[in-house]
Amino acid sequence: MINKDSKDLNLRKNIKFLESSPIRNIANSAIDNKDVIPLWFGETDIITPQFISNSMKSALDKGHTFYTTNHGIPELVKAISDYSSRLHNKIISHNRIMITAAGMNALMISAEAIINPRDKIICITPVWPNFMRCIEIMGGEVIEIPLILSENNNKWTLNIEEIEKNISDAKGIYINSPNNPTGWMMKKKEQEKILDICRKNKKWIIADEVYERIVYDRKVAPSFLDISNKNDLLIVVNSFSKSWAMTGWRLGWMTIPDNSLNFFEKLNEFNIASPAAPVQHAGVTAIQKGEGFINDMIAKLSYSKDLTIKHLSSFSKVKMPKPTAAFYAFFKVKNVTDTETFCKETLLKTGVGIAPGKAFGKHSNDWLRICYAKSPELLEKAFNKLKPILD
Amino acid sequence: MINKDSKDLNLRKNIKFLESSPIRNIANSAIDNKDVIPLWFGETDIITPQFISNSMKSALDKGHTFYTTNHGIPELVKAISDYSSRLHNKIISHNRIMITAAGMNALMISAEAIINPRDKIICITPVWPNFMRCIEIMGGEVIEIPLILSENNNKWTLNIEEIEKNISDAKGIYINSPNNPTGWMMKKKEQEKILDICRKNKKWIIADEVYERIVYDRKVAPSFLDISNKNDLLIVVNSFSKSWAMTGWRLGWMTIPDNSLNFFEKLNEFNIASPAAPVQHAGVTAIQKGEGFINDMIAKLSYSKDLTIKHLSSFSKVKMPKPTAAFYAFFKVKNVTDTETFCKETLLKTGVGIAPGKAFGKHSNDWLRICYAKSPELLEKAFNKLKPILD
Repeated sequence: MINKDSKDLNLRKNIKFLESSPIRNIANSAIDNKDVIPLWFGETDIITPQFISNSMKSALDKGHTFYTTNHGIPELVKAISDYSSRLHNKIISHNRIMITAAGMNALMISAEAIINPRDKIICITPVWPNFMRCIEIMGGEVIEIPLILSENNNKWTLNIEEIEKNISDAKGIYINSPNNPTGWMMKKKEQEKILDICRKNKKWIIADEVYERIVYDRKVAPSFLDISNKNDLLIVVNSFSKSWAMTGWRLGWMTIPDNSLNFFEKLNEFNIASPAAPVQHAGVTAIQKGEGFINDMIAKLSYSKDLTIKHLSSFSKVKMPKPTAAFYAFFKVKNVTDTETFCKETLLKTGVGIAPGKAFGKHSNDWLRICYAKSPELLEKAFNKLKPILD
Repeated sequence: MINKDSKDLNLRKNIKFLESSPIRNIANSAIDNKDVIPLWFGETDIITPQFISNSMKSALDKGHTFYTTNHGIPELVKAISDYSSRLHNKIISHNRIMITAAGMNALMISAEAIINPRDKIICITPVWPNFMRCIEIMGGEVIEIPLILSENNNKWTLNIEEIEKNISDAKGIYINSPNNPTGWMMKKKEQEKILDICRKNKKWIIADEVYERIVYDRKVAPSFLDISNKNDLLIVVNSFSKSWAMTGWRLGWMTIPDNSLNFFEKLNEFNIASPAAPVQHAGVTAIQKGEGFINDMIAKLSYSKDLTIKHLSSFSKVKMPKPTAAFYAFFKVKNVTDTETFCKETLLKTGVGIAPGKAFGKHSNDWLRICYAKSPELLEKAFNKLKPILD
């Protein structure tokens, strides 16, 4: 039972060899350096608005410090059911909503619900890698099907042909739209096509829609909830992190098929039981009084997006499809193929933290991501520092 | 892809048939009934002390609303490292502590770390069932080895012989001491024996020590941390829920072997990333200023324990080994074998909520559990109502 180093620990091999985040690999070296401009993580620099924090304080004063049910507190389930029904123009009933400790927790629960060892899941990449790692933790396998970048209009689209070719081998399909890292937003027609394919083949759709409100030309992104019915094999994952600037609160929810709540409540019980009780009470306030905040934040993000597009497009070495949603720019730099090394060198030379594309799948090694959810001043500073390298 | 009811959902069978909590099965019927005296769940009726809540409020005022590292905030890691080193008379270094969203989350992460499909884990029962369900979610198998109730002295002891017989088939052993539901507390000598067996066979110990401070004749229960070294294959799970009356906060930690932090941080990232940031700040205050609160709470619990023992021992039909730690009484009632039915009937007749023994393993169907972490007034009332049935 004695070990000299971690090699001797009798831990699971498929976890030991789980890819650690290439973003963290770069960021860890400089995470405490105040001079670094951190554009690598997917987080705004906005502190959670006070009316939400006040609501948590008031929940504490009322003594909401006990276990809650696995479903979530009824006030929050109702608030989300109302909100989601309103956004998607149909009744999303209480028994289709389960409160989770962030979108991440909802994704792990989804993996536990669906994936037997050696089951395959199609993942549309480039994508935030965490659900791919959940699949691997459960012993499943990832089939990456990359988005196609059209030479014509420099826009991302789904590779429907490849999806149709692989769907029968898979248990389901995971899609994140609006997408981290590309800023791509799936069209309603594409969603209808995916739903049709999955219905025909009796396959699951896991739709990661945490950026549904981070959109610039409408109120909410196209959602699988718009076009599906309550019996479809569909899990829609959502989160308070992005829409209400609550990354550090760990609060999210999943919309599940009718008649499956008992099943998912069990998984909630054995994962974390439920998110923190006072945090759930703050969630009620965020949902009910947060629309003004979202509008203000989107106005700021929109300005930052335009600023980012203006600068990056002006740099001679940069090739970038214009992001349309979420808060990321995803781009290539002429003659740069090993972006992990490039990011390390750029950090040393300029003090700007950029994320390497290999973080988002096997086919995006020569891409780079920045998160533009920062103040215009900070972004101007960052682009000035990057100019000598990118132009 | 259309389903008429949950039978048609293409969900994992080993989750579908996962036992739901027999306690919940009984409690759900009456959970909103204010006239019911709820002795079924493992929770005190103490609201989290104000100095801890104030610390969370102050963290919000300071803007601690962002992601934290997977390790946990450095202040909390340090506070726990100091606290644990002090309690267990040895250095438990920072890199052996990982902050988790409650003990439950730490247990699920432990299962993900160790259990490949068909791996077997020895579980000492009767026990709080949740880790057994984690094993099953990961596709592993539970080997239940029940505690032996000595006819001589009416005390629980480990069945070392049976453990030795089964250990080579298993990947490790899960023990919860102080124990929910029996109130049993493992002796140092028993721990040494288990450690010896696991060292010889290179097997994991998952020690669930969330009740280590809920003890009545000493400051802290015997812990595997007292006798192990940093290279042993040992995970010790702990929680803020019981010691600081923080069930609804979802905050815990795990103590892991040296050189394994990177591995466990990855699992934290893909489960929930980290507990809520303001909650972690409250945890620092709980650890640093909570000793007075723990002492007061233990005095109250001790009174409730003695009251419970006095009443239950006086009832002619009750047979009960005296609980020595945690806050449960576990007992048999003459001629009652189907305790699930008995609990339902008792609820209807008396309005007192009791937990059936089958919740805690295959071999305790004829046992009952009450949680005595309630006010003396409420307990007196409950025992008065139970007297006609138990006496």
